[in-house]
Amino acid sequence: MAIHEIDRLEAKEILPGFTGKFIHMEKMTVAFWEIREGSELPVHAHPHEQVTIVQEGKLALTMNDETRTLEKGMVMTIPSNAVHSGRALTDCRVLDIFCPPREDYK
Amino acid sequence: MAIHEIDRLEAKEILPGFTGKFIHMEKMTVAFWEIREGSELPVHAHPHEQVTIVQEGKLALTMNDETRTLEKGMVMTIPSNAVHSGRALTDCRVLDIFCPPREDYK
Repeated sequence: MAIHEIDRLEAKEILPGFTGKFIHMEKMTVAFWEIREGSELPVHAHPHEQVTIVQEGKLALTMNDETRTLEKGMVMTIPSNAVHSGRALTDCRVLDIFCPPREDYK
Repeated sequence: MAIHEIDRLEAKEILPGFTGKFIHMEKMTVAFWEIREGSELPVHAHPHEQVTIVQEGKLALTMNDETRTLEKGMVMTIPSNAVHSGRALTDCRVLDIFCPPREDYK
């Protein structure tokens, strides 16, 4: 059975301050992020649909020139090719799911 | 911006003991489940690829005639059309993501 323990997954620092653990499936990638306070996610876009679920901390996200701060229990959906960026206002734990899989995180 | 607060989403009891809150996107559905101890998920399959992330409690999942107990921090991936079933050994909080969206949960 395809069971994973998040603690045992290999961690990769994808961007400065953004350390992720990944599960890649046929149609989706799940990313478990630990983000260091002050880390910046530069403005970017990707064809993957994305959902971001904040599990701990405060994460400022910008899309369509609007910035909102997400905390535990808040979820943002990011359509394919939407331009977005972010900044960790505190240390954060965040879950992202992407469809299709993120080949660049493999 | 497409921001959701999980607490404010409408809850639906989809099966006895399985109460979900849903975010439907173009390519995926995210389901935030609260499952009552003892509740049974009957044997079933669906074309949707699924990932199940246990956030609280103990959930027994069966796939391919093998049963494993998942706890917080454990993740199971379920391929399209894989036959699976489950049983909540305690009250659980579980996150499921499906691709494509679950039209039957709308």
